[in-house]
Amino acid sequence: MKVVGGSNFFLEVVLLCLILFPICSLAEKKPLRFGKGGSFKILQVADMHYADGKTTPCRDVFPEQMATCSDLNTTAFLERMIHAEKPDLIVFTGDNIYASDSTDAAKSLDAAFAPAISSNIPWAAVLGNHDQESALSREGVMKHIVKLNNTLSLVNPVEEHVIDGFGNYNLEVGGVEGSSFENKSVLNLYFLDSGDYSRVPSIPGYGWIKPSQQFWFERTSKRLQSAYTAKPEAQKGPAPGLAYFHIPLPELKSLDKTNFTGVKQENGIGISSASVNSGFFTTMVSAGDVKAVFNGHDHLNDFCGNLTGIQLCYAGGFGYHAYGLAGWARRARVVVVNLEKMEKGGWGAVNSIKTWKRLDDQHLTTIDSQVLWSKSSAGTP
Amino acid sequence: MKVVGGSNFFLEVVLLCLILFPICSLAEKKPLRFGKGGSFKILQVADMHYADGKTTPCRDVFPEQMATCSDLNTTAFLERMIHAEKPDLIVFTGDNIYASDSTDAAKSLDAAFAPAISSNIPWAAVLGNHDQESALSREGVMKHIVKLNNTLSLVNPVEEHVIDGFGNYNLEVGGVEGSSFENKSVLNLYFLDSGDYSRVPSIPGYGWIKPSQQFWFERTSKRLQSAYTAKPEAQKGPAPGLAYFHIPLPELKSLDKTNFTGVKQENGIGISSASVNSGFFTTMVSAGDVKAVFNGHDHLNDFCGNLTGIQLCYAGGFGYHAYGLAGWARRARVVVVNLEKMEKGGWGAVNSIKTWKRLDDQHLTTIDSQVLWSKSSAGTP
Repeated sequence: MKVVGGSNFFLEVVLLCLILFPICSLAEKKPLRFGKGGSFKILQVADMHYADGKTTPCRDVFPEQMATCSDLNTTAFLERMIHAEKPDLIVFTGDNIYASDSTDAAKSLDAAFAPAISSNIPWAAVLGNHDQESALSREGVMKHIVKLNNTLSLVNPVEEHVIDGFGNYNLEVGGVEGSSFENKSVLNLYFLDSGDYSRVPSIPGYGWIKPSQQFWFERTSKRLQSAYTAKPEAQKGPAPGLAYFHIPLPELKSLDKTNFTGVKQENGIGISSASVNSGFFTTMVSAGDVKAVFNGHDHLNDFCGNLTGIQLCYAGGFGYHAYGLAGWARRARVVVVNLEKMEKGGWGAVNSIKTWKRLDDQHLTTIDSQVLWSKSSAGTP
Repeated sequence: MKVVGGSNFFLEVVLLCLILFPICSLAEKKPLRFGKGGSFKILQVADMHYADGKTTPCRDVFPEQMATCSDLNTTAFLERMIHAEKPDLIVFTGDNIYASDSTDAAKSLDAAFAPAISSNIPWAAVLGNHDQESALSREGVMKHIVKLNNTLSLVNPVEEHVIDGFGNYNLEVGGVEGSSFENKSVLNLYFLDSGDYSRVPSIPGYGWIKPSQQFWFERTSKRLQSAYTAKPEAQKGPAPGLAYFHIPLPELKSLDKTNFTGVKQENGIGISSASVNSGFFTTMVSAGDVKAVFNGHDHLNDFCGNLTGIQLCYAGGFGYHAYGLAGWARRARVVVVNLEKMEKGGWGAVNSIKTWKRLDDQHLTTIDSQVLWSKSSAGTP
């Protein structure tokens, strides 16, 4: 665009940005990339259930803690986690706010994400089943989130005309700057809206990931794999992918303590998935790149278990206004992805994906460290 | 298109047809419609397993039958069924040919469908897992099928740029000519390619219906519902749908003889579905219009059972070169859809969907007659 009779480049850019807001908004955001140390760390925060802050009481803490316990304990835990782990990305996997107890959903969202915003660390969020229980619809919540500082969240992929839900998008994590993987995404992150509740009268219970979303995921995975296996530095397999969404898949029901690390102590059926299977596990296994899935929703489950080559992981409940278990600490999951050290020096593709959890106790105790995936064991799930 | 300096309309049409072949090909085909009697009958033929005709022996018949039994018995059964039932549509649900025993797949296809072709009754086919086991690929088989006379089969929907498989399409059945439903599709038929075998190393067994196909189905169902509920004669609910594909869904495993009509006697696991759930049952329940699903694949299962408002039906094995059970007659399924008689006279929307099977015995004995769906009981699955 040329402003006739002038050469005000800044004005041109501003005008262009007003027209092409989404593109400029994206362009402003610094892309994710592995650091010089060859690792990328993600902090997962599940189920903050934030409401009004100081006036919102805690749930399921010991009676003597009640008087001084509120949403601010959730904030403090998040601040401590960020300080302790210094992640490269913070991912919020839904039920970020408990909107039915919130006086003003927008303010609750602002407060819930405040520690992430002020940390200047990029962050991403998806929706749970409680985020929209106020004046803000699911679309409204997601539209509010994407305007907050430092977030990489998107309402939906710009290229999609029809997709179910709000908060389906992907993020690419580039190789180390100056390395031969500089211009490749070596780690792919998928974020999906697993819905809230069934809208189908004959299907009770929670929502699920729909065909439109799975088709988008499938095409995105294919596109990324195609780029990864193209020259230069053409790779043989796909770059590892991690998927983040709120409601666990029904396939988690087939895991038990003989094949998972962590705790499964949710009341009743154990896994609060949708009551039907919408096939997303099959779609991910078929795509071939996703190595681990990270859910929230079941605050009292915090395990990771391998099924058909994909690690299915919970983070465990984080928020103090969320149901929990007095004496069983609120917790968060950390994932660190390490690159391969090349013979000639420098960093290559992803070598391993590790995880642990931290408890909200005096020392932020680390528990359940485990390797989720490694290049050397790939193909032997 | 205007031919300059001439007025040869025929030439124009021919030229246009050469350019727009698929459209002209469609236009040639007479659309399906309920007859003056207010009913529409579909004959389902599952698993003909046709090969070379007279020289291809039968399987699993009594020893004394072997000498005179061949693919021609399959042909004779099909001819008798067509003559006895006079269906409005014949649907072949895959494993139409047993291509690995076929000398020439194209000839086998021609011979297998010959009774349908010569009956002048419209027919439609989908692929099974055995149709492509020769020089003709799945695409090749489907491309051969769509060129045969009287078929309404399509390789894939013309509007889809990316869809998995070959033989995904839908057919609309219009209301009675001259009635107020003349210009509405009152019955919708969906045909899908359920694949052959898994292409995913970590998933063993049979194929499944992919997200791209489900997304197409979902959008097609939505479009049809939108037309059905639009003026004139705006309807409240969707027009009933019937889905035809080869490999049964894993959900059939949850049915047992307390809630189905027919026989479940397939060896081993009972239901030879894919080893994973790809979500198509959930997608159909969500769409809300499909009242019954018709599969083949398991020759020794022939039951129908209701799950969450959808009847899941087998046809039972039809072909003599297919495995079966000596003494357990080859069989076919008939579905008849009846319209509602209007108070003012004439025909309205669909009132009931009934089914029965016919055995290949002396009298083509009818068994297991049942109502699959009726307007009066809708909403009470």
